Amino acid sequence: MTQMLNEILNQCPLPNALEAMGERWSFMIMRGAINGLKHFEEFQSNLGIARNILANRLSRLVEKGILSREPMSCDRRKIEYRMTEKGMDLLPMMVALRQWGEKWECCVEGGPALHDKRDGLPIQKMKIFAHDGRELTADDLIWALPERQLASEDAPGEMAA
Amino acid sequence: MTQMLNEILNQCPLPNALEAMGERWSFMIMRGAINGLKHFEEFQSNLGIARNILANRLSRLVEKGILSREPMSCDRRKIEYRMTEKGMDLLPMMVALRQWGEKWECCVEGGPALHDKRDGLPIQKMKIFAHDGRELTADDLIWALPERQLASEDAPGEMAA
Repeated sequence: MTQMLNEILNQCPLPNALEAMGERWSFMIMRGAINGLKHFEEFQSNLGIARNILANRLSRLVEKGILSREPMSCDRRKIEYRMTEKGMDLLPMMVALRQWGEKWECCVEGGPALHDKRDGLPIQKMKIFAHDGRELTADDLIWALPERQLASEDAPGEMAA
Repeated sequence: MTQMLNEILNQCPLPNALEAMGERWSFMIMRGAINGLKHFEEFQSNLGIARNILANRLSRLVEKGILSREPMSCDRRKIEYRMTEKGMDLLPMMVALRQWGEKWECCVEGGPALHDKRDGLPIQKMKIFAHDGRELTADDLIWALPERQLASEDAPGEMAA
């Protein structure tokens, strides 16, 4: 266990990210919100989730800044939930997980998939790219501190393949 | 609620993907395995996770085909856990979630980040691309069935922005 690996594990934003996103139901609620669900009753009937769990998860997503909660202008007793900028920024992660599920976990062949509105063609598979556009695999990746790039004395920990 | 949205929510691989990945600890274990942790004791001491929870999550990840479990060739009483091809395929999703956490949840400025081994430069931010390389936002995306691409009578549901 190198010092670098310790730093990676201790300073990693993944635990905070997971904490913010919460668990399975939170994920399902975000997926619904991205696809246009806005009201408590819509989430409830579409996801088949218990009302107390839904209320809890909606509050948490609002508190974490992933959903906004606003009264509708036409009827202020009705509340609308919408993905915030922070929430919509989760889309690449959700698309990557969805594509993984399509490849490894699915289920239904030929179900709905995300396409480009302009030409109707399927989107690319999510990949990791170098700054110059080369596609990278786990073997090509290395951990480094921004201010110490390429400083060999830091002996950055290699990603295990 | 359109028929298309119903199809999207019912046939979506995300629930299966989340089921396979499990929750927070499973995520932390995968992150450790990607970074070279191999043995029960290594996971235990690095993650500070209770032994019974660790054993449970390792079994589940093995059962789901995300980790392999093999005796070491030098000492067959010692077990090694490694990410499988299916497991390593989660890397784009994990990198996307990490980058989101770096932007929105963090915490530590200038901590270790993933770089390209060849030139030591930071990797690109994970983005969604069209087949021809144009960057896409949520507004550019549409759900469609593979066999019905561009068939306007299907009125595919638009992604809400």
